[in-house]
Amino acid sequence: MEFTHFNEAGRGRMVDVSEKNVTERVAVAKGAIRMQKETLQKIIDGQMKKGDVLGVAQIAGIMGVKHTAELIPMCHNIFISGSDIAFGIDQEHSRILIEATVKNTGQTGVEMEALTAVSIAALTIYDMCKAIDRGMTIEKIFLAQKSGGKSGIFINQNESL
Amino acid sequence: MEFTHFNEAGRGRMVDVSEKNVTERVAVAKGAIRMQKETLQKIIDGQMKKGDVLGVAQIAGIMGVKHTAELIPMCHNIFISGSDIAFGIDQEHSRILIEATVKNTGQTGVEMEALTAVSIAALTIYDMCKAIDRGMTIEKIFLAQKSGGKSGIFINQNESL
Amino acid sequence: MEFTHFNEAGRGRMVDVSEKNVTERVAVAKGAIRMQKETLQKIIDGQMKKGDVLGVAQIAGIMGVKHTAELIPMCHNIFISGSDIAFGIDQEHSRILIEATVKNTGQTGVEMEALTAVSIAALTIYDMCKAIDRGMTIEKIFLAQKSGGKSGIFINQNESL
Amino acid sequence: MEFTHFNEAGRGRMVDVSEKNVTERVAVAKGAIRMQKETLQKIIDGQMKKGDVLGVAQIAGIMGVKHTAELIPMCHNIFISGSDIAFGIDQEHSRILIEATVKNTGQTGVEMEALTAVSIAALTIYDMCKAIDRGMTIEKIFLAQKSGGKSGIFINQNESL
Amino acid sequence: MEFTHFNEAGRGRMVDVSEKNVTERVAVAKGAIRMQKETLQKIIDGQMKKGDVLGVAQIAGIMGVKHTAELIPMCHNIFISGSDIAFGIDQEHSRILIEATVKNTGQTGVEMEALTAVSIAALTIYDMCKAIDRGMTIEKIFLAQKSGGKSGIFINQNESL
Amino acid sequence: MEFTHFNEAGRGRMVDVSEKNVTERVAVAKGAIRMQKETLQKIIDGQMKKGDVLGVAQIAGIMGVKHTAELIPMCHNIFISGSDIAFGIDQEHSRILIEATVKNTGQTGVEMEALTAVSIAALTIYDMCKAIDRGMTIEKIFLAQKSGGKSGIFINQNESL
Repeated sequence: MEFTHFNEAGRGRMVDVSEKNVTERVAVAKGAIRMQKETLQKIIDGQMKKGDVLGVAQIAGIMGVKHTAELIPMCHNIFISGSDIAFGIDQEHSRILIEATVKNTGQTGVEMEALTAVSIAALTIYDMCKAIDRGMTIEKIFLAQKSGGKSGIFINQNESL
Repeated sequence: MEFTHFNEAGRGRMVDVSEKNVTERVAVAKGAIRMQKETLQKIIDGQMKKGDVLGVAQIAGIMGVKHTAELIPMCHNIFISGSDIAFGIDQEHSRILIEATVKNTGQTGVEMEALTAVSIAALTIYDMCKAIDRGMTIEKIFLAQKSGGKSGIFINQNESL
Repeated sequence: MEFTHFNEAGRGRMVDVSEKNVTERVAVAKGAIRMQKETLQKIIDGQMKKGDVLGVAQIAGIMGVKHTAELIPMCHNIFISGSDIAFGIDQEHSRILIEATVKNTGQTGVEMEALTAVSIAALTIYDMCKAIDRGMTIEKIFLAQKSGGKSGIFINQNESL
Repeated sequence: MEFTHFNEAGRGRMVDVSEKNVTERVAVAKGAIRMQKETLQKIIDGQMKKGDVLGVAQIAGIMGVKHTAELIPMCHNIFISGSDIAFGIDQEHSRILIEATVKNTGQTGVEMEALTAVSIAALTIYDMCKAIDRGMTIEKIFLAQKSGGKSGIFINQNESL
Repeated sequence: MEFTHFNEAGRGRMVDVSEKNVTERVAVAKGAIRMQKETLQKIIDGQMKKGDVLGVAQIAGIMGVKHTAELIPMCHNIFISGSDIAFGIDQEHSRILIEATVKNTGQTGVEMEALTAVSIAALTIYDMCKAIDRGMTIEKIFLAQKSGGKSGIFINQNESL
Repeated sequence: MEFTHFNEAGRGRMVDVSEKNVTERVAVAKGAIRMQKETLQKIIDGQMKKGDVLGVAQIAGIMGVKHTAELIPMCHNIFISGSDIAFGIDQEHSRILIEATVKNTGQTGVEMEALTAVSIAALTIYDMCKAIDRGMTIEKIFLAQKSGGKSGIFINQNESL
């Protein structure tokens, strides 16, 4: 199989999707950000009192979905039907877990939108906490599953958080 | 130490940096994207013939630097003096390594811009290759070092690619 | 009835509209900006000679329609079928009246787009005149009516300019 | 006094500020959004449980500051040193009160940025609550005060919330 | 025939296209940039070694397609099905020839998107080469052909590169 | 002399300008759009009655200045001190002439901003008139002069409208 995003001259193109079927498509991406135990504790505490880091990250991630086509050169600009993000606390490994779900009805999938949502949410967590912990690491951003479109259902069985 | 990005009501704010010194600031962020061996080989081959995935990712990453303040809610919009990205091939672990350097002269650092550059470059590699390998994973995005500003030099000694 | 824009964790989400019907939708929003009599007179005079403040505000308002989803976090990005703005002069209360109409065919309404158009038009009038009148006040931005979608026709009977 | 934003042909221009002094500038804008008593109560209750409408509005308002020059045609694009928003509850008149403060050091003021922050925050409150109360009205957006620059301090003594 | 983009007050509007048919639409725009022979030679040489100016221009042009509605005030924001750019070398007249093709399925054409792609690609070539040749001229940007929509096929027979 | 916008790997970079002097910089770009005589006449007539095409193009061009760094991949995002556009009518050759002047005080020039302003203004004239004249051609966009910075004054003596 070959790259689809290059033309005959070997330069980038936005693939023509006009012959593809309009189907309902869903993509779920996951990722995590690892930090010091003290930082994680402050995030947990802040939810109730001082300021909700994850609330800010949630909004940034969802707005990021709408910026995807502006950021990824060959990505189609599409109408998004819905988008949500869920966070989990992994105290054992001192991480915030991030899961973004994006849905549309159209001719192209929303994998890039879901992956972008996770990335921007993770970057926002970094930004909100960097004054107290510069050494945080964004880990393992991957497509967990997607459905819809010609290639059907994909479930990533090699990767988990 | 406390979060700086929340006001007394516990809601996000853009920190007032007007009292900070104008200094030259540099940030270096790193990250990687892991893929199947065949995908990596196609990227390497494409550089010469069919289309340069990393050339597209480079441009996306550098343009991403200029979108940082639009993506990260509490991030200041700043003038960037310069920005570059370097890619490495890690055949042993079947990964592309990404290193972004961003420079400015101002009152806030460019850590978020460097981390965003790495993230967008990685997402672009994913987008360009996803038709042949949906299971790629973005790994370990972290701030490798930064200089300038009140907190001076930071070198991340706990993380490497 | 409950807020629809929050998920179970109490954080913002972009509501899933994929089950909604595709219907033609129209929204009309209104607003006004009050100013000194001299300022209003200059705007009226300028239409013919020195520069048309309302012409600039019109364009800003219409371009604002296209920025709505970028500005309002949980707002869907949608295709707009048409958009227009009308201005009125209210000499008695020394105000410019603004009315924006936005139309689309889709699964979500265009209330936010119409309200954004009025807001940006009003802000632009302020900007164009602020050197001569800093004390202008934007008054009463509201949805005047909307049609289309499950909730049908809404006519705001409690508010007028 | 004449409009400064038009050239000799009577068309819009971005005023040349290169001769202006670089000074620290602060602007405070205010506004309100009036709603049904039940809607206001839900916003108050949600802060603790179901979802913080004002937290979303805060982030939208602050991000709106960074979009100002993109929205207002003749507005200069500038570096913002800091930005914050405060909300108040006016139960007597069933309103949310909004106050935005923006600061920069430069050759142009930040009045438009502060007014834009209030407008976008108000529009976001409308968006988050429109499913339960379509008849909300955005009231009285005005510049409360500004300092810095050649024209010095301005305090709006004719308007209050 | 009259201008369609003005309302009765003589101010700009976004034309209502809701009654138009959804058809497949294609537009092809062309343009050129003339430069010194040495500059052209460096671009040709760079493709293989030092850096591919046209590869950067290609990506900028395709991303420009997605910015069209943000740049052109009365232009509809639309979903693009596909987009590609081809470059040619005209050594006789020391020019780079640019041809952009844009496709969509909708109620408005993609002429502006194709013309914008050519313009941004040409501007990017200028930017990449300006340090060695400030006197380059962008020549003859025109719509070469379009199909789809009520007005059917248009082939520009008066203009060629 | 070599291209400055590529790194050692032959990929695009944003040149580091941190060592450059902060100077006042001005750039003037010119261009034209050729059309049918009837179209030109309608534009001239419209200025007074039906709608001012050039007024819309002026605003689009000035707003385009602020989008330059978003459109041109390796272009620095900068503060603009001022910007204006002048139009001329060339009845002999049935053209609108466009001249954009952009000014800043900084470490990089504003050539790209001036050229972008002319391009966007020309594209907007095309858009506003395309319903009556699809065969318009954008001609000769070039840098007419620039001053400031290390390379000093440049006056383009080989090109004129």
